[in-house]
Amino acid sequence: MKQRSTFRAILGGLTTTALLAMGAVQAKDMAPEPIQPVPAAKVTHPAKVELGKKLFFDPRLSRSGFISCNSCHNLSMGGSDNLKTSIGDKWQKGPINSPTVLNSSLNLAQFWDGRAKDLREQAGGPIANPGEMAFTHDLAVDLLRSIPEYVSEFKKVFSTDKLSIDEVTLAIAAFEETLVTPDARFDQWLKGNKKALNAQELRGYQTFKASGCVACHNGVNVGGNSFQKMGIVEPYKTDNPAEGRAGVTGKDADRFNFKVPTLRNVALTYPYFHDGAADTLSEAVDTMGRLQLGKTFTPAENADIVAFLRTLTGKQPQLTLPILPPSSDQTPRPKPFE
Amino acid sequence: MKQRSTFRAILGGLTTTALLAMGAVQAKDMAPEPIQPVPAAKVTHPAKVELGKKLFFDPRLSRSGFISCNSCHNLSMGGSDNLKTSIGDKWQKGPINSPTVLNSSLNLAQFWDGRAKDLREQAGGPIANPGEMAFTHDLAVDLLRSIPEYVSEFKKVFSTDKLSIDEVTLAIAAFEETLVTPDARFDQWLKGNKKALNAQELRGYQTFKASGCVACHNGVNVGGNSFQKMGIVEPYKTDNPAEGRAGVTGKDADRFNFKVPTLRNVALTYPYFHDGAADTLSEAVDTMGRLQLGKTFTPAENADIVAFLRTLTGKQPQLTLPILPPSSDQTPRPKPFE
Repeated sequence: MKQRSTFRAILGGLTTTALLAMGAVQAKDMAPEPIQPVPAAKVTHPAKVELGKKLFFDPRLSRSGFISCNSCHNLSMGGSDNLKTSIGDKWQKGPINSPTVLNSSLNLAQFWDGRAKDLREQAGGPIANPGEMAFTHDLAVDLLRSIPEYVSEFKKVFSTDKLSIDEVTLAIAAFEETLVTPDARFDQWLKGNKKALNAQELRGYQTFKASGCVACHNGVNVGGNSFQKMGIVEPYKTDNPAEGRAGVTGKDADRFNFKVPTLRNVALTYPYFHDGAADTLSEAVDTMGRLQLGKTFTPAENADIVAFLRTLTGKQPQLTLPILPPSSDQTPRPKPFE
Repeated sequence: MKQRSTFRAILGGLTTTALLAMGAVQAKDMAPEPIQPVPAAKVTHPAKVELGKKLFFDPRLSRSGFISCNSCHNLSMGGSDNLKTSIGDKWQKGPINSPTVLNSSLNLAQFWDGRAKDLREQAGGPIANPGEMAFTHDLAVDLLRSIPEYVSEFKKVFSTDKLSIDEVTLAIAAFEETLVTPDARFDQWLKGNKKALNAQELRGYQTFKASGCVACHNGVNVGGNSFQKMGIVEPYKTDNPAEGRAGVTGKDADRFNFKVPTLRNVALTYPYFHDGAADTLSEAVDTMGRLQLGKTFTPAENADIVAFLRTLTGKQPQLTLPILPPSSDQTPRPKPFE
């Protein structure tokens, strides 16, 4: 019995590996597709996730006491702020469009230029960025240590008295890993429910594949799994000074290479591109067609692709708003106007 | 039978009326107390409340697309922002401390100076205040009308095609009316659970009554039901230019008269006073004793009163974070940096 189970497991493993190698999902009665459904979140450590949620919503991690992770990755608004570029400490204009936090665990790296290898590394960035939350890791940790309820919660979650930026970012990342959006209509279709898409949406998907959009926007996250140059056929014109991947690698060849954004929930994450220049999906599809593929979509093709993209909106995380532990008399007070 | 029921109802009604006239609650085996328990919220129109919740969390009601009602009345932080004075559009420094939205329906009027007679009138204020959300009612309404999901939701809730600032503020007020915090330990004690308070807390409550704090901080909201002068015995020194009630009545006698703030959830709503000058409860109790009562509390008395005040933290509203309907292609985009 044991031997047979092992044999089955290996067989199952091989099949899955083969399919993953194809970048495809094989559903009953269906051809392999270059996009795979978003799996539901697996919460293995609920207390860590709950702590991470509190930290995600806690504006005391910013110098001003006003800006939290949720300010720019607003979970009421597709995990983004729907601004061209974000607002930072003292109303500073952010350098780049806030990418959605939804499904971000499925990306190959974090930030538009991929400078953080994972969510944990990302989470520490904005806290200490003078243009964003404008705090320091030391001050953030000191603040949390002054709040008895946080201290005991960290201790419970991490089974240690250590409360450093490591535990803070681990908890935030654990929460963010749960922010996936399964069950989009497109995923229902992928899983075999032929009625989940209407004729126009299906036509849009076929055009999306046939035109080459899918070359970069594929996989579970319909993007997020490679860096690509913005403006392959025609150069992209923008006042935004972001250099993309070159800023990380130092290679001139990587200038204007950006992480391909996910198209999951794209109907919620307007405006589009790293500079937020495209206000609507129609405009984004038009620009991408011309600049990346040398293709001018007809109005009908554009409308079809947009209709398809709207089927990528998944089930949004249902979150109970956290109640934050209050500051103690020893907690340093924010000074937003100094 | 019917007659007997009616008779009982009248009797019940009379008893309640009589008790209300005394400003007291008569629990079994208990003397009447000058503070009454917070009743649980009665939701008579859940769809209106749900719409109001969305509007409360929607930053598109601000010019910048960044500031929502929840920014300054943060429901993760006792319905306040825990800042001395709030941050407005373009990081403007607010003129006054944000009062908590929790239990605000129990106040005799809204704002520190009571210039809005109810929550509905209040809700329209910050949206159009150039120093706060910096929008206009017309622009806010135009924006909502451009979002199909909002249009149909308003229609469903109000049974009319009319979508004006009236419906917007009615919905927000309906949501805010649900933001009550029943079941504080002090309320459990009021209702007869003698074990709900420990000896120090009870001593603190006795000192609170005996010293005269309760003269202004009484009723269901432990305040919120009268205007009083800040600095009766000794003048209150502050750089804050707020004039209080005089700005509404035009009477010089009303200078420095403010609405007595609620002490419900006061452990969560630091810093204290209209200028947010007191960082801790201990400091606030000390200042109030000296300036309002001509009394210097001993450290032990101060600690007792603070212990009592901490029993006024009620059950915080458990809210599912709303998912906001996305903007349409026609929705005007925010321009936070112009």
